[in-house]
Amino acid sequence: MKIYNDYLQTIKAAVQADPKNRRMNENLSYETRNMFEKGMSFRTFSEQVPEKKLLPSLADLATTLGREPNFDQQLGLHPDFAHLRHSGGTENHYIVSMFVDISGSTNLFKRYVQETVAIITNTIQRAAIHTALIFDGYVHRLQGDGLFIYFGGKGISPKEAVERSLQFSSVFTYFVKNDLKNVFNEQGIEQIFTRIGVDLGHDSDVVWMMAGIGNISEVTTCSLHTSLASKMQGYAERNGVVAGDNIVATVSDLGQYFAPVCQRTDERDRYIFQIPEERFNYTQHDFDWLNYLKKQDFIATDILGAPQLRNRSAVYASKNLANLAPIAAVSKPSFNG
Amino acid sequence: MKIYNDYLQTIKAAVQADPKNRRMNENLSYETRNMFEKGMSFRTFSEQVPEKKLLPSLADLATTLGREPNFDQQLGLHPDFAHLRHSGGTENHYIVSMFVDISGSTNLFKRYVQETVAIITNTIQRAAIHTALIFDGYVHRLQGDGLFIYFGGKGISPKEAVERSLQFSSVFTYFVKNDLKNVFNEQGIEQIFTRIGVDLGHDSDVVWMMAGIGNISEVTTCSLHTSLASKMQGYAERNGVVAGDNIVATVSDLGQYFAPVCQRTDERDRYIFQIPEERFNYTQHDFDWLNYLKKQDFIATDILGAPQLRNRSAVYASKNLANLAPIAAVSKPSFNG
Repeated sequence: MKIYNDYLQTIKAAVQADPKNRRMNENLSYETRNMFEKGMSFRTFSEQVPEKKLLPSLADLATTLGREPNFDQQLGLHPDFAHLRHSGGTENHYIVSMFVDISGSTNLFKRYVQETVAIITNTIQRAAIHTALIFDGYVHRLQGDGLFIYFGGKGISPKEAVERSLQFSSVFTYFVKNDLKNVFNEQGIEQIFTRIGVDLGHDSDVVWMMAGIGNISEVTTCSLHTSLASKMQGYAERNGVVAGDNIVATVSDLGQYFAPVCQRTDERDRYIFQIPEERFNYTQHDFDWLNYLKKQDFIATDILGAPQLRNRSAVYASKNLANLAPIAAVSKPSFNG
Repeated sequence: MKIYNDYLQTIKAAVQADPKNRRMNENLSYETRNMFEKGMSFRTFSEQVPEKKLLPSLADLATTLGREPNFDQQLGLHPDFAHLRHSGGTENHYIVSMFVDISGSTNLFKRYVQETVAIITNTIQRAAIHTALIFDGYVHRLQGDGLFIYFGGKGISPKEAVERSLQFSSVFTYFVKNDLKNVFNEQGIEQIFTRIGVDLGHDSDVVWMMAGIGNISEVTTCSLHTSLASKMQGYAERNGVVAGDNIVATVSDLGQYFAPVCQRTDERDRYIFQIPEERFNYTQHDFDWLNYLKKQDFIATDILGAPQLRNRSAVYASKNLANLAPIAAVSKPSFNG
């Protein structure tokens, strides 16, 4: 999808300017290599990928969805439960917990200087945050290359929250699996991929409270289903999304997009958690995010079957059929920067 | 060690009041069971384990070490690098990165209601934070049951920072492996244990910068050695600490406390990271934290060879030899609460 093209351009530019990467090309003269000694500066990245502004390609997604991202969140302080901070109190309220792990970035140190690694990982992270905000996610924690995102809260139904979490996971995983991969494939380096775990805890299954002390603290959830979302992440395949029973039960109209993890792996992986005394057996499911993505209102598939943002596709569709082939071609990121 | 006794008392009290736990004792009448329906309140915990006050037993450790914990830190904003926030700038500076994972807590949901689980995990987390502060650690992130702690900064040498990180890991792991285990063994439930990964990145190997956007951000490090500390955590055995080459080289006088991980596992685990083109082979080491702990100035071993805080031991040593046996006995946590 082209919605991340502007983010990819920054990554591509940083990679091209990287002195270690260029040094591997032995045809470069000493002087030419030295020209690039510092690589792209982190400051240049900060200017190219502003904190509180979607880059134009991603802004198109927000426009299509009719959503305004709220950039004024704060880590570890979900606005609906911020009152619990230093209160000693607790509150029961449903939430969708999602752990997004971005793996493989350690290998970037083999090929690039630290500044380049910092630009690559931070661009991906900003793209993830920006996307989460478009889908009304609340970014609870940054975890290095990963994120812990809540979906839901007061004034939104569990079903809506689950749907937005699934939409986020589909769009972001597609980006990493396809668009980002294309950039690194050109470089011949090992792949970066995501693993996502997601689960829903109902009101009675989630306690919100403050953890930690003073400003070394966060308002967070104590819930089996937050813990299980984190565990299920570990069972996801490369660029896979694993969801708990509660997610599947809440979007019962989407049953065709879920299959027990054990069908891919081993019967022993069917249940992510069991309490035999209570006959509690909790199944984990692989989420077929690609086919789910293709069925979204905001997505159309191009002539090669690749998902594209619908408003763009509509523009192309107005052209005559003979011109459709080039459209598929532009679905791959193309860089001139 | 008795330094955590006051924290353990809170956990023990929460466990005793837990309605689910009590229900397992079928001799209880319906009325008696109902009496305990709510268990201990989170508010009671908050009062018993105050945010910014070491409990008396742990305060003894701080006194012995002559250290005043600084409770006024803020997550994701190391005071020496806070100026980088929203600056777009970067700074190179050494740091020790430590990932502390506390595993096994998901199983607590099998036995206890959520409020009890919240009290148990939060008490352990506050004990960890309090201990980190005593050893001049900077708590960078809370990660559910885990913590990401930096040691070092401006005005402290890498060697001192490494030593404090090793002291912290020894004291805290001893607590979880021994004192905490005793509480849960009595309950017949599966064990909670830690895994710790720690590494040092030198000035040239660590870039500090802001990650994220707005208040969804932290001042953090981009460094191979931060990434490796996180990876090494995964190679630690239960209640084990794994450290990188840079740690071992910095405390060369402590060589006897380190052994390559591959001696415990498999030759393939010798290097946590390699760059063949650069002949860069980075070894991971098991840290013999128990014997290191016993050699610390602030620790004496009792008649059973168990470590105790030295000032307390000195008191006992002043008694006659015939009275030494009971001292060993009190080294196990005893609860009357």
